[in-house]
Amino acid sequence: MSNPVEKLQQMITSGDAEAAALVHFENSRRYFTHFPSSDGVLFVTAGAVYLLVDFRYGEAAQKRAKNCEVICFSILNNSLKELAAKHGVKRVYLEQEHLTVSQAKRFEKVFAEISVETVLDETLDKAVRSLRMLKSPQEVAKLEASQQITDAAFTYILPYIKEGVTERDIALEIEFFMRKQGAEAIAFELIVAAGRNGSMCHAVPSDYAVQRGDFITMDTGALLDGYHSDMTRTVALHSVSDEQRIVYEKVLEAHLKVIDTVKPGIPCSQIDKVARDIIESEYPGAFGHGLGHGVGFEIHEEPRFSKFDDTPCAAGMVVTDEPGIYLPGKFGVRIEDMLLITETGCRTLTKSPKELMIL
Amino acid sequence: MSNPVEKLQQMITSGDAEAAALVHFENSRRYFTHFPSSDGVLFVTAGAVYLLVDFRYGEAAQKRAKNCEVICFSILNNSLKELAAKHGVKRVYLEQEHLTVSQAKRFEKVFAEISVETVLDETLDKAVRSLRMLKSPQEVAKLEASQQITDAAFTYILPYIKEGVTERDIALEIEFFMRKQGAEAIAFELIVAAGRNGSMCHAVPSDYAVQRGDFITMDTGALLDGYHSDMTRTVALHSVSDEQRIVYEKVLEAHLKVIDTVKPGIPCSQIDKVARDIIESEYPGAFGHGLGHGVGFEIHEEPRFSKFDDTPCAAGMVVTDEPGIYLPGKFGVRIEDMLLITETGCRTLTKSPKELMIL
Repeated sequence: MSNPVEKLQQMITSGDAEAAALVHFENSRRYFTHFPSSDGVLFVTAGAVYLLVDFRYGEAAQKRAKNCEVICFSILNNSLKELAAKHGVKRVYLEQEHLTVSQAKRFEKVFAEISVETVLDETLDKAVRSLRMLKSPQEVAKLEASQQITDAAFTYILPYIKEGVTERDIALEIEFFMRKQGAEAIAFELIVAAGRNGSMCHAVPSDYAVQRGDFITMDTGALLDGYHSDMTRTVALHSVSDEQRIVYEKVLEAHLKVIDTVKPGIPCSQIDKVARDIIESEYPGAFGHGLGHGVGFEIHEEPRFSKFDDTPCAAGMVVTDEPGIYLPGKFGVRIEDMLLITETGCRTLTKSPKELMIL
Repeated sequence: MSNPVEKLQQMITSGDAEAAALVHFENSRRYFTHFPSSDGVLFVTAGAVYLLVDFRYGEAAQKRAKNCEVICFSILNNSLKELAAKHGVKRVYLEQEHLTVSQAKRFEKVFAEISVETVLDETLDKAVRSLRMLKSPQEVAKLEASQQITDAAFTYILPYIKEGVTERDIALEIEFFMRKQGAEAIAFELIVAAGRNGSMCHAVPSDYAVQRGDFITMDTGALLDGYHSDMTRTVALHSVSDEQRIVYEKVLEAHLKVIDTVKPGIPCSQIDKVARDIIESEYPGAFGHGLGHGVGFEIHEEPRFSKFDDTPCAAGMVVTDEPGIYLPGKFGVRIEDMLLITETGCRTLTKSPKELMIL
């Protein structure tokens, strides 16, 4: 089976051997070559794939970059011109979603000097996105390793949650635990929202001190080896009201129904609808965000479980399943796993329990 | 005195009342309005300044954004068209260094629909950069508050540094301390480099355990209220060799000479040369990076104390002074303060001691 960069090569050059692609976006370069670097470009021609890096990365890239030939350049513009000439390149696709206007101008000028056309449309971005949506088994293993830290942090934090502890204390404690476990960073600004704050789906951890009877929603994730994890759990302190219990069970029902439903071929928008219908029938307007998003080198990537995304589910996608009910002035509940879509359905990469937990 | 956005307004519209500027870059929007938001645009016409935000930020922006009229839009494109028409705008300057090609295309299309020209050159970026270089007293106070956390972290970490503690342990401990002191985040990936690792100026903290006789270089900073701080100190464990002491004193000499020299009017390149001459005369090739960089909403901004930057020093600039000597296979020393350039010279915003410290 061909690797992703060979697939990209085929997408760009199979009908046009004089075409090439210039991948500049850091996450995409890393995806194709497995080599992280803050600077450099991947130049994909019909005949060869080159990773061009400066002296800071030359030695390390020679040793560790995969699926490409490494060139340590003195002057990037000159190296690009030489390679374009060597491979008879006549047009180069660029990333309109990632290059700034000045970066694009720079590359346009370089290639214009050797009469090579540049194409600044959605072709390259779409091609890369379609590849990055599908995770290889190696990538899934990295996502699972990242999620293991997030699961461990959840287990770790439960005994720490007591009356009087603030949202910010909890968030910092989770962050420190993840970093000590080897996470490069947290995957995003962690959300810890308790009591009434729980009704704001993007609340920032505050100095609010947790009280008995509160729901505490924790949306957390680690970054490990470039891969993000993302999980939400809502736990209660001391006790819950009947309403809290009913809302929790409704969110869990929607969350589980999604896991039962997901399989290759079903449009992402349909998956969103499955969860939304369950919640909207009893809590209209209370689920004010999309159901989920792809996760990988970026915390939010394609596809989306959203009414706006009709991409069919496909084996290898990793997408979050995170329905919620938010009752302003009262409380909120969200439950989130990362789902790996398989040939026959899906499996969750998240191991933390999700039954209602009263601490 | 006019505020920065009035200055921008004047730079863009004083010779051309039909011109306007569209500021999209998050840090620049925040600089002009004092309001942080992940999305939105600042639209500056000859007659008025508007901050356009979506429903997520509408209420908060109304309360807190400064020096502008806040518009909470339903459809950004429509609001921009209305405002351009209302103010008789005929051309709009865009940020070529910050807009992606697709973002620029989007704005070009919107304005083309109402026959307004868009200008994608360096005009707007240069204007904003020239303003952001000069910090107001309020901004200096925020930089000092951020640096106070960094100074406190240095005091905190010294007793923690003992034989056997790893670079990574030290870096994490500093990070946790800063976060507990209220820092939103660390200002950059902290550098802790001990022994031979100290000769790599951008070393990543490793599992190397500190030994007696090591120099330990700590390049650290906090992010507080949007403002970065940046300080480097090099300390020794237990003892130093004569060579270590001589190198340390040489770096300190260069660092202090810079503080003596800086004053308005002197080109930044000349400041770099002052430090470089001191080091190069005895350690040729051992100081392989620029002397310093502006600090503010970004950790690296204009101007640079570099041979490539002839910007004259001006009161209100905040620039790092960070000479170093790196001896591969042996050790490295770097000492860094943030300097505020004043009317008569400069003062350092950094309070930590910098005489050779042997722990």
